[in-house]
Formats: sequence, structure tokens, C-alpha cells
Amino acid sequence: MEKISFKRGQIIFKSGDVAEGLYIVASGNVGLYFPGNDSANEPNIILDQTDIFGEMGVIDDQLRMATARAHSDIDLIHVSRKDFDRKLDETDVIVRGVMAVLSERLRQLQMSKNKSSSK
Amino acid sequence: MEKISFKRGQIIFKSGDVAEGLYIVASGNVGLYFPGNDSANEPNIILDQTDIFGEMGVIDDQLRMATARAHSDIDLIHVSRKDFDRKLDETDVIVRGVMAVLSERLRQLQMSKNKSSSK
Repeated sequence: MEKISFKRGQIIFKSGDVAEGLYIVASGNVGLYFPGNDSANEPNIILDQTDIFGEMGVIDDQLRMATARAHSDIDLIHVSRKDFDRKLDETDVIVRGVMAVLSERLRQLQMSKNKSSSK
Repeated sequence: MEKISFKRGQIIFKSGDVAEGLYIVASGNVGLYFPGNDSANEPNIILDQTDIFGEMGVIDDQLRMATARAHSDIDLIHVSRKDFDRKLDETDVIVRGVMAVLSERLRQLQMSKNKSSSK
């Protein structure tokens, strides 16, 4: 785990990027921009201190679905995929199974939502 | 954890029930019926062996969203909320945080989907 800082407006990751880890907001605000939102400062979701983001790519190994941008000057804690996988390896098999179910359903719902909103 | 058996057609839980645990399919098929689906044998999702269901209520302490019915004669493994909470207590705080994020987003997406499909 490491601390990373971004200035307001900087991109943390973009939709379509390979996911190399997840982030926890240590200070400031992060904006998440869903596909189809091309604005530069009107995110779909604004995250606060202690919020986690970027977890989907780490869990199921797919590309970033959203773009994350610093909504203010921010400090983040970065948890690499390797760090997270090590934590998961130590996790009970049922807890891990539940997490896999949640992430799979979330992907499906997000895909069907994106489909219906682009109609 | 305990094994529970149901005959084809029996209800495992109903939408709106208090969630007292999650289930793993040991043998047979389980049908999940989302709100608005009043059929008796045309589930929205059919689950197979090793699939997990009923996890949402255990994780975020809300009522059952779907109805689960035995789609064939089935054996299930039941993991009580207490068993699951004990497993979670032993889980790394970041893994637990990620799980909380996943379940929260899933609830939100399911609610907005139900809203838009009832229009």
C-alpha cells in the first residue's frame, strides 16, 4: 500500500484502462464519470474520505468501467492488485465466494443499465 | 453451517422476508424470482451447484429482495448470519470495505433498475 497525491482535475484512471489496483480516499474528493459522461467536472458520483473505488477491476480482472478524476486536491491510498490478492488468499472461501457473486451481479447490472440508457 | 433439503416447488425465502443467512447450492437447481415476477416456475435466474444466493441480506442487513424457490429437488448449505459475521470479523479490513462497497452499489443499481422497469 502506498500514498498517492493528485491535483484537482487530474485523471486517476480512465474507462478502458487496465486495472492495477484499488484506491481509498485519504483526503479530498474524487469524481467518478460513467461511460457516456464526457464532462470534465460534473461526475456521476463524488467520493469522500474513507470511500473505496476502483475495486471492480481488481476483483474480476476486467478493464476500468468508469473514469476517476480528482475533484479537489487529494491524497489516496493505493492497494495494488498483488496486495489485494494476498489479502483475498487469506480470506475464508465463503466470504470470497460471496464477493465473487456480488462483483459478477454488479457487472451484469451495470452492463444492462448502460445498454438501456444508451437506447 | 447445515445442510437443508427442499422438494421441487418449495419456497426457500420470499421477497420481504427477514434474511437470516445465505445459501450455497449443493445439488439441484434454485430459481430466483425478482419483484414483479409472479410466475411459479419461470424464474429470472436459475442457479446451479456451488452457486451462492441470499448473500445480500446477510451483508447489509436488509430484507430479501427476491423470492427463491426450489426448481428441482435440492440440497442447500445454509450459512447463518452469525456464522457469516464471524467469518467477516476474521477478514482483512480492506477486503471487508470492498465487500461493503460492492453490496451498496448493487442495492442502488437494483433499486434504480426496479424503478425504471416499473415505469
